[in-house]
Amino acid sequence: MATVDRWLLPDGIEEVLPPEAARIETARRRVLDLFQRWGYELVITPHVEFLESLLTGSGQDLDLRTFKVTDPLSGRQMGLRADITPQVARVDAHTLRREGPSRLCYAGSVLHAKPQALATSRSPIQLGAELYGDGSASSDIEVISLMLEMLELADVPDVHMDLGHVGIYRGLARAAGLMGETEQRLFDALQRKAMDEIECLTAALEPTLAGMLRALARLCGGREALDEAQAALAEAPAEVRQALQTLIRIADQLAARYPKMPLYFDLGELRGYHYHTGVVFAVFVPGVGQSIAQGGRYDDIGADFGRARPATGFSTDLKTLVSLGNADLSTPVSGIWAPHSDDPALWQVICRLRRDGERVVQALDGQAADAAAELGCDRQLLAKDNSWIVAPLAS
Amino acid sequence: MATVDRWLLPDGIEEVLPPEAARIETARRRVLDLFQRWGYELVITPHVEFLESLLTGSGQDLDLRTFKVTDPLSGRQMGLRADITPQVARVDAHTLRREGPSRLCYAGSVLHAKPQALATSRSPIQLGAELYGDGSASSDIEVISLMLEMLELADVPDVHMDLGHVGIYRGLARAAGLMGETEQRLFDALQRKAMDEIECLTAALEPTLAGMLRALARLCGGREALDEAQAALAEAPAEVRQALQTLIRIADQLAARYPKMPLYFDLGELRGYHYHTGVVFAVFVPGVGQSIAQGGRYDDIGADFGRARPATGFSTDLKTLVSLGNADLSTPVSGIWAPHSDDPALWQVICRLRRDGERVVQALDGQAADAAAELGCDRQLLAKDNSWIVAPLAS
Repeated sequence: MATVDRWLLPDGIEEVLPPEAARIETARRRVLDLFQRWGYELVITPHVEFLESLLTGSGQDLDLRTFKVTDPLSGRQMGLRADITPQVARVDAHTLRREGPSRLCYAGSVLHAKPQALATSRSPIQLGAELYGDGSASSDIEVISLMLEMLELADVPDVHMDLGHVGIYRGLARAAGLMGETEQRLFDALQRKAMDEIECLTAALEPTLAGMLRALARLCGGREALDEAQAALAEAPAEVRQALQTLIRIADQLAARYPKMPLYFDLGELRGYHYHTGVVFAVFVPGVGQSIAQGGRYDDIGADFGRARPATGFSTDLKTLVSLGNADLSTPVSGIWAPHSDDPALWQVICRLRRDGERVVQALDGQAADAAAELGCDRQLLAKDNSWIVAPLAS
Repeated sequence: MATVDRWLLPDGIEEVLPPEAARIETARRRVLDLFQRWGYELVITPHVEFLESLLTGSGQDLDLRTFKVTDPLSGRQMGLRADITPQVARVDAHTLRREGPSRLCYAGSVLHAKPQALATSRSPIQLGAELYGDGSASSDIEVISLMLEMLELADVPDVHMDLGHVGIYRGLARAAGLMGETEQRLFDALQRKAMDEIECLTAALEPTLAGMLRALARLCGGREALDEAQAALAEAPAEVRQALQTLIRIADQLAARYPKMPLYFDLGELRGYHYHTGVVFAVFVPGVGQSIAQGGRYDDIGADFGRARPATGFSTDLKTLVSLGNADLSTPVSGIWAPHSDDPALWQVICRLRRDGERVVQALDGQAADAAAELGCDRQLLAKDNSWIVAPLAS
């Protein structure tokens, strides 16, 4: 490999330079502080784990996105985390083992062997919050509200949210006796709203259930879609009607809290279907193909770690949040330039200024004061009457 | 794999739970703020890179510690970073390309395929600062001072520092015409202070140089070792005497700045010899076999990225710093418990309190107020006269 391309980074793997890195650090702190004010406690999960732990309950999609390595110590396969959510579920189910509800949050890099979409980063900084141990809609409402507060804090403009509930399709499919490949094909057709295929795949089913499954593809739009759903699913099994009621309760609470946020519903869109068990949600902004924050309920995941717990949460990518948001994340840079000198008195003055929170940049051997302004200094230390004083930078 | 061990983490791979994770986050912020006050700018480097970039100039030790994966997009070999220093050198040499000195810092997880020592973590959080573009001793003095300030901030007790300079051995070996395997064997013998082997390996060399190479093994101890070295190396080549003068200048400045810090010198101990080019240093505490913070000068590394720049810096592990330090890193947890209610007025009050920086934990559906104290709340929101007021938590 020639010198010239030794420095090239792999596609989708980024480095962040100053001052952008400082903006990301500021956003990270603000968001973690927000989570803390809502009662969410930070956990730090490892970047590698045994593959079985990482992929538990998450389905094939995450498997394909996960880099694998062999652990030289145990000989077992490990994966580089591509998603922090299953790790936090493991912490809740196995390590913490709390009785009551538990609110956890995290921030850390993940790696994707394949990008989720063309030109998507393979090294996002995943930020998220999870609420375990409570199966009620109030948990879903809380985590979605927290996600929206996070977006407001980052000042991401023009956001809108899609909401759905996987229990509606799942309940209908189960009642209709759909399984295996047929169920998978109907699921795929619904995602694409491929009406002809849906028609064909439901032709042999019990007519009422078939009609309701077909209806899912067109049950989308604003709040009125939920009213239409209530009519269209009036004869549905109890669990389906219950799922719809939960979705309505969540939607109405969110509309009351965030009246300006456009809400869309799509009962056929089943984001993260294999993983989720209840409400699913995703936030979009114009011009960005992928959701910028997303989540949902995933009650079953803890079972794989020895303890089933209700769970709901969301995640986002900090770098996306910072690049799309308008929040002022810049830290005002000021500073004091100190000359190069071995004078112990100068060292004492510099130490004191830094302890007081000042930024002090000291000249290196032979470095002229010309560099001071370039390094963000607006003042300088000058020797005067046998002591060191802070003076404006001579311009 | 049975459920029961799905959650086991690989050896040396840790997760950090509340409240320890919050303490680490606090320490991370304080240290990065300290670096900022010294003029160091944050960079965020990727967790994977092409192997050639990661291992440049670093020698075999880092190679063995680096996990490798194949990039499915390019088919090329990538490594998981086991050390952030070469990455930051790449950023300075290639990406930033600044003319004058450049001060950079970083904080992030690294992964080690093999632990550096028995029972050492394989997933430290590496924190460090690097100064590029200045070859003078003042840069070394600055980064070592910053490292000591960091240890003081973490309040790590009983630290002492070892200092050396690889230019002394290197210059003598070069003058004696030592190369390849013989040089490597002498180097190994010096590390072990194996006098018989050193004697034997230097027997055929020019007598004055042989005598000085042998002397290195016993030139260790307090400040007096440097005076002995001046006598023992009086006839050494100019570059060797120059290296010794640099070491003395650095030692004396540090002694003046940190008179209470015990300093030890060892001219035969060549920590990171393949990597470093000048002064090398490491901080130890009683009872811990490994150094807890270390660094040195490594002027040649940038050349591999198309631009040779003088470089000096240090690194530490944030988790070690927190576990050994006595600094109070706990965040006082207080909070206000809010009942479960859909009342929009309550929601407004909660929002306002959180905006004002209060921590507010809201009850979930059916959750009793008993949980409040356990969740760190010392006050509660109560309905009174058609409004919500903050009252002490009933005990």
